[in-house]
Amino acid sequence: MRFYVKSSLQYQVSGPSTLLCSLRCLKTPGQSISEECLEVIGRADRTDLSVGLEENRFTKLESSWAGELRIDYNAIAETTVSYPSVSDIFTAEVASFGPEVITYLFPSRYVPSDSMRALAWDLFGGINGAFQQAMAIENWLFEHIAYLPGSSDEQSGALDTFLTRSGVCRDFAHLGIAFCRALTIPARYVTVYAYLLEPQDFHAAFEVFIDGRWYLIDGTRIAPLNGMVRIAFGRDACDASVATLFGGIVGTGMSVHCQISFDADEEFLPMNRCDLEDKGEAILME
Amino acid sequence: MRFYVKSSLQYQVSGPSTLLCSLRCLKTPGQSISEECLEVIGRADRTDLSVGLEENRFTKLESSWAGELRIDYNAIAETTVSYPSVSDIFTAEVASFGPEVITYLFPSRYVPSDSMRALAWDLFGGINGAFQQAMAIENWLFEHIAYLPGSSDEQSGALDTFLTRSGVCRDFAHLGIAFCRALTIPARYVTVYAYLLEPQDFHAAFEVFIDGRWYLIDGTRIAPLNGMVRIAFGRDACDASVATLFGGIVGTGMSVHCQISFDADEEFLPMNRCDLEDKGEAILME
Amino acid sequence: MRFYVKSSLQYQVSGPSTLLCSLRCLKTPGQSISEECLEVIGRADRTDLSVGLEENRFTKLESSWAGELRIDYNAIAETTVSYPSVSDIFTAEVASFGPEVITYLFPSRYVPSDSMRALAWDLFGGINGAFQQAMAIENWLFEHIAYLPGSSDEQSGALDTFLTRSGVCRDFAHLGIAFCRALTIPARYVTVYAYLLEPQDFHAAFEVFIDGRWYLIDGTRIAPLNGMVRIAFGRDACDASVATLFGGIVGTGMSVHCQISFDADEEFLPMNRCDLEDKGEAILME
Amino acid sequence: MRFYVKSSLQYQVSGPSTLLCSLRCLKTPGQSISEECLEVIGRADRTDLSVGLEENRFTKLESSWAGELRIDYNAIAETTVSYPSVSDIFTAEVASFGPEVITYLFPSRYVPSDSMRALAWDLFGGINGAFQQAMAIENWLFEHIAYLPGSSDEQSGALDTFLTRSGVCRDFAHLGIAFCRALTIPARYVTVYAYLLEPQDFHAAFEVFIDGRWYLIDGTRIAPLNGMVRIAFGRDACDASVATLFGGIVGTGMSVHCQISFDADEEFLPMNRCDLEDKGEAILME
Repeated sequence: MRFYVKSSLQYQVSGPSTLLCSLRCLKTPGQSISEECLEVIGRADRTDLSVGLEENRFTKLESSWAGELRIDYNAIAETTVSYPSVSDIFTAEVASFGPEVITYLFPSRYVPSDSMRALAWDLFGGINGAFQQAMAIENWLFEHIAYLPGSSDEQSGALDTFLTRSGVCRDFAHLGIAFCRALTIPARYVTVYAYLLEPQDFHAAFEVFIDGRWYLIDGTRIAPLNGMVRIAFGRDACDASVATLFGGIVGTGMSVHCQISFDADEEFLPMNRCDLEDKGEAILME
Repeated sequence: MRFYVKSSLQYQVSGPSTLLCSLRCLKTPGQSISEECLEVIGRADRTDLSVGLEENRFTKLESSWAGELRIDYNAIAETTVSYPSVSDIFTAEVASFGPEVITYLFPSRYVPSDSMRALAWDLFGGINGAFQQAMAIENWLFEHIAYLPGSSDEQSGALDTFLTRSGVCRDFAHLGIAFCRALTIPARYVTVYAYLLEPQDFHAAFEVFIDGRWYLIDGTRIAPLNGMVRIAFGRDACDASVATLFGGIVGTGMSVHCQISFDADEEFLPMNRCDLEDKGEAILME
Repeated sequence: MRFYVKSSLQYQVSGPSTLLCSLRCLKTPGQSISEECLEVIGRADRTDLSVGLEENRFTKLESSWAGELRIDYNAIAETTVSYPSVSDIFTAEVASFGPEVITYLFPSRYVPSDSMRALAWDLFGGINGAFQQAMAIENWLFEHIAYLPGSSDEQSGALDTFLTRSGVCRDFAHLGIAFCRALTIPARYVTVYAYLLEPQDFHAAFEVFIDGRWYLIDGTRIAPLNGMVRIAFGRDACDASVATLFGGIVGTGMSVHCQISFDADEEFLPMNRCDLEDKGEAILME
Repeated sequence: MRFYVKSSLQYQVSGPSTLLCSLRCLKTPGQSISEECLEVIGRADRTDLSVGLEENRFTKLESSWAGELRIDYNAIAETTVSYPSVSDIFTAEVASFGPEVITYLFPSRYVPSDSMRALAWDLFGGINGAFQQAMAIENWLFEHIAYLPGSSDEQSGALDTFLTRSGVCRDFAHLGIAFCRALTIPARYVTVYAYLLEPQDFHAAFEVFIDGRWYLIDGTRIAPLNGMVRIAFGRDACDASVATLFGGIVGTGMSVHCQISFDADEEFLPMNRCDLEDKGEAILME
């Protein structure tokens, strides 16, 4: 499937400042990027970086000039999505995880999975199979957490979301990741451009590592799983935030667009969790 | 300086289990390792791994056989320590940090530096210079936190230590890292073999990135800074723990030794923070 | 001084519900109430209650009828304020506190003073004299905490306020009370009508028990101390909230007024903490 | 039933200090006390106090003399226990609670029931009837929380216990109270002498107010419910702790005994929660 993604961040700079932003789509076996353009309007020194194990593609801007700063990004992303049968996904032992996967079993800032083990086992420990546990978690998130913009803030973590039962995409992802890690299922945070998301915005979901592959999960169910273009992976929102600001700089605006680009013979059938469940399928992008 | 390090971990395995351990010393420009031997006594499949940006050298053991398991490690570590003059260490802007350093500005599981910004600025914001702030933090830790084994547990984080005013080496490091990150000084956790530490045990300290280099800091002041051999770096204890256990395995014993190995013409002069402060020097291992 | 106070609470009832409200002014040796009227507009069963050691005057309304409910209150409050010299206030031993005072040394929901002992001693332990410590706390609150509506919510406690450095009157009071109790100074929460508060609203402050009397303190400094008419005392906001709702009832509006009523020969001189400090005086209402 | 209770607290005094202790049994309609003796061995000024709505009988000791201090207490307590049929206990509306009961709906230091509402409703909201909910809570505590001395400390609250799934009697009571208050069932903490408790110690449980009466609940199930002699009520352990120390005084020892004193024609049949459940009965002391 081919997507046309576009985003813009606007800032007001008042003094020496650094901006680390993550707008460029990831390049992975299942996601190729073309006709990509990231343009900086305003005075700033720019460095493009690949950060972390997952090669997140950050852009660092350094500015000492008071004034407006804008970053405009657009690209064409080609994603290849497959739908393996759930019955073919086997639970793997920790022993089989490589080092880059084991990292995603550890607790992190917004994911205190070490404190939530008894809770996770209580809720999902009786379910057979890691993928089946992950699906039960997705279901629990959808049924127990209200999607409510403004109900959380940037310091909210998985335990807060469990208690308040409300949050935004980031909070759903953190709580899902916490339950998974507590059950010894590696889980990572992912930010995405999301087709059909209303209103258009950056979105976050998570991926679980089972049987050698990373399956995509989104407990909010507010955008089709096969309409997502991945931007950055991380342990949690710390690693994969769209923009991190240092110094005399404040955000003044933002826009995001994710459109589909059909070939004549193609058709986009939005797949959400329930559609897949009916067919006994999982979703995989690689 | 040449150190002879030796450690042993003992476990009882009752069922399928995985052990991820970090005993082998890091290889860095300032630390070379020779005559290294890690031996596993007991039935287990072994994999040696390099994990993360800092190339921590983990060993993964997989065992399905009930019985005892022991890991014995010994090596000779040659460390090159330099003592740059504090007056030559300049505060750097965030703009100059590369991506692998920026990671160490983010909060992590035991280091909620995002929640401790006002506090850190209140205590240390008035001090000029990043290295001077880091030294003030080291001093504050030594003066305000009691080194008290048993006063914290594995879920204790930097805020707990700030409130209880007590902890072990890990807690001193987490709180120091939290203050540094809150002040926009990159800081990383490091586990070490520590010469002259009484009683002998694994030890933890932290390093701050200022003016392009990582300086070693230890607010406990219970071991000489130039007697440390580094094992693993990380955001906090999550990434660099000596052993992480999964499945049917429990620890039954541990021993650690770090001895010095003099050449005829050498002499080891233990340097602690106060000795260095008197001379206006920092400590650097690279 | 004579004050004319007036308040109104509006609710929408959708089903069986109970409202516990605290609008009526306290009757104390230093505060007498006359021409008082609390009127309920709408269908509800009303009970007037005196609750707790301090005889807070709650009104309980029980309603099963869908519709609007309004509570209108007005009264004339005569307050007698004295200004004892600070040099005459002696620090008392715990031994001298009666049982009704000792209660105010214990931690409570929003005042985890048991966790903040080291912190309080670190900040204020070096100051001689309980009243001097309380004044230093008032000063610290004013200088370190930003008065910022919307920065906290109803679950915020003293530790949150210490970390975020922002809050509303309730948060200033909770943090002040926490520091005092941690230093073994009994402290209680008080809600008030506040003359000259802009915009007019319910207000909260706290009182400390030193040398046998309760002195009034308000770290927000947004209203004169001698312009307050006390409504309810409590351990913290739990005990003294203006309204607690159970069942099918939601607030729809609120208004508060506190005006002064001069005699021909009187004059109101607003006294805030700084005015009093200049004169070496405390403020006392009894 | 007649119980012979005996307790002793030992302290070492090093300087001016105050001790507030709660050893004397409560006098209530269902519990009468005779042949009571509280003796202080050592130099201290003693005051006997009744504190709070529930008339807890504290003893305050003030001492300035270095040396040993011991408090010995013994009494005969006659308790009248009734076993109303559960089917006769009706759920009452908040509207019917008097002010002294409403206090026990509010959150307190170790019972953050305001943060645990969604959780409590999720677990117990589907159960019909307040008493049935309370019984489900008792059952949940027994099945999900491990009684494990040393697993908690004096700052542990209900949320900690929910997460760690372990604690002592105090922690079981706090978590039970939190669930109840979150469901709008008034609940209070109670410390007791407990017959047949092994090893003998002070014990804590809780009481819920339903249909006009306070029913006793103990999720630990480590002592018979009809073998308890009540010492003090409170919102949580803050209000009802056996001893609160101020100044230069530390505990050095403690002993507790609770024996039964049979009449010739009497027999003591230990009733625990399961015995009562089989008969469809509750337990009530008044």
